[in-house]
Amino acid sequence: ADLQAMADARAHQDRLTKPRGALGVLEEVAVRLAGVAGACPPPAPAPAALAIFAADHGVHAQGVTPWPREVTTQMVLNFLAGGAVANAFAAQAGVSVTVVDVGVAADLPEAPGLVSRKIAYGTADLSAGPAMTAEQAVAALEAGITVARDLVAQGNACLVTGDMGIANTTASAALICAFTGRDAADTTGRGTGADDATLRHKIEIVRRGLEVNDIPGDGDPGSRSEVVRRLAAVGGLEHAALAGFVLGAAAARVPVILDGVIAGAAALVAAALAPDAVGYCLAGHRSAEPGHAITLDHLGLRALVDLELRLGEGTGALLAYPLVSAAVRVMHEVATFDSAGVTDKDAQATLDPST
Amino acid sequence: ADLQAMADARAHQDRLTKPRGALGVLEEVAVRLAGVAGACPPPAPAPAALAIFAADHGVHAQGVTPWPREVTTQMVLNFLAGGAVANAFAAQAGVSVTVVDVGVAADLPEAPGLVSRKIAYGTADLSAGPAMTAEQAVAALEAGITVARDLVAQGNACLVTGDMGIANTTASAALICAFTGRDAADTTGRGTGADDATLRHKIEIVRRGLEVNDIPGDGDPGSRSEVVRRLAAVGGLEHAALAGFVLGAAAARVPVILDGVIAGAAALVAAALAPDAVGYCLAGHRSAEPGHAITLDHLGLRALVDLELRLGEGTGALLAYPLVSAAVRVMHEVATFDSAGVTDKDAQATLDPST
Repeated sequence: ADLQAMADARAHQDRLTKPRGALGVLEEVAVRLAGVAGACPPPAPAPAALAIFAADHGVHAQGVTPWPREVTTQMVLNFLAGGAVANAFAAQAGVSVTVVDVGVAADLPEAPGLVSRKIAYGTADLSAGPAMTAEQAVAALEAGITVARDLVAQGNACLVTGDMGIANTTASAALICAFTGRDAADTTGRGTGADDATLRHKIEIVRRGLEVNDIPGDGDPGSRSEVVRRLAAVGGLEHAALAGFVLGAAAARVPVILDGVIAGAAALVAAALAPDAVGYCLAGHRSAEPGHAITLDHLGLRALVDLELRLGEGTGALLAYPLVSAAVRVMHEVATFDSAGVTDKDAQATLDPST
Repeated sequence: ADLQAMADARAHQDRLTKPRGALGVLEEVAVRLAGVAGACPPPAPAPAALAIFAADHGVHAQGVTPWPREVTTQMVLNFLAGGAVANAFAAQAGVSVTVVDVGVAADLPEAPGLVSRKIAYGTADLSAGPAMTAEQAVAALEAGITVARDLVAQGNACLVTGDMGIANTTASAALICAFTGRDAADTTGRGTGADDATLRHKIEIVRRGLEVNDIPGDGDPGSRSEVVRRLAAVGGLEHAALAGFVLGAAAARVPVILDGVIAGAAALVAAALAPDAVGYCLAGHRSAEPGHAITLDHLGLRALVDLELRLGEGTGALLAYPLVSAAVRVMHEVATFDSAGVTDKDAQATLDPST
């Protein structure tokens, strides 16, 4: 991130016709985007593109969710038909939708808006051994990087993360343990509808996955090869692709709005590979999943929307997008105390009110 | 509010291709708007209109804010020139801006976007006696009702509150005490920049205003005439007009998105006059002012945006507007489990995925 552009953005905020700091968290969003772009004011984050990375999970066989695995495929078809909540939110926000198949356990028909980067028909069961080979994890990382690069090449100035994968909160919880050192009981939640018994079982499965894959409780992979090993061991193909998507956004100097706990877990992986990538991330929302707050703390990110969403698909990030746009618009359109002839209490100099 | 439309909205939410309740607070927003409109799905809340009610305050003379009183007039001119944060946020959200002068202490030039309903050149000092006469308070209430009615007659389907009045967080704190029974120390905050000494003084001024106007600590005006007496005693002309604006929205069966602590204090007055009016309100954001959380609790409202804004003008409500629109759009555009062929875990019936 460009520190000079960030300092310029802070100084510009203080000249605008509003009390200093009165836009709260949005002022820091604008400063962050100035750093990302290396320019003050930062460019409007438009157009923006949502990429929904979809994949299936071998751990589904362990009964960690009440939803059948086929719902991943069904929901991909729903996205392509424009019928999901992510489609409605994207239409509302003026964001394009791309679905990326990195590991759905079915053959999907070619369709507009669908990018096929299938690496496997789902992962293996993380509670019985590694979910992916290292080669698969790297291929998924590269797929995410490529999708980000392509979307930016198409003119997008802001990327938005989405995901679809029945059972992917289980893999997210395991990844958060592997990259923060927290216990499975702290990181595992009800996902999209686990009852008490399923939640207890899910925690046990996450614990077993960490044990069987020899992931220590240090939360610190240390080397890049250990980052990839832990990702491959307990992650999903969409997590790996999302981590690559974040890295691709950072490489292109474009901001990326993270959705919930799945994107957060992926961002932990991206940060472990390239700590500077976090500077390109905005946390769209805080999910109801307990592991997400832990993840945001670890990344040092503050969520923009906090409405108890637990849907995924990119819905939380899409809701945040107009807030991010508004934060940037302020930098372009709001008058300064000088230009508007408004008295600045801090400068204590009244200017000609006729201007 | 129409209970049948609300029940229909809840049932419709449960048929949509998402886990039940997964949209969190936004599901309740859609249900509320169905109740407001008496229809499921509720109509899109568009177009929407922001009304910024502006007025000055006699209590400014007590040194409750570091900002000069003239800033009220200067900011009105800034709104009319399109240079304020509210203008930028309104442009982002596609919301029109109307400025209503109900009590600015200066003669304003005629201008497009300015509605003159001036009742006085500011209020009297609430810490020395009543801020307004009962007649002035009623006239301001009526002005707000009229503005709401006119904006709806022009085709607006959603109203958004805004305010401008240097020193109006002081009057807000006093109103919140008068209508909730809380102590001045709990309801009074730093507004747009009071330091520690100014804050202590401001609390003292609020206390004095309640005492000198014989407002008991019961938080329960009881009669309508006592509501108007308390409003006139410690409120501002913009508070009275905003209370009328809320009543006008409710009368027109149109939702109104409340901004921060000033609108919240006004909504307490509206609720005391007509308890059902609260059903037409959405809380746009939670202000950093301590009195606002108390107000939202009292009204039973949950804020949609919580980003430490302390600017006023309608900025918090404008940020919430796209979230409200998104909540309604879901009701119109998202496929049902049936129509999309997605398996509903709760219904446990897979439908033909080829549909």
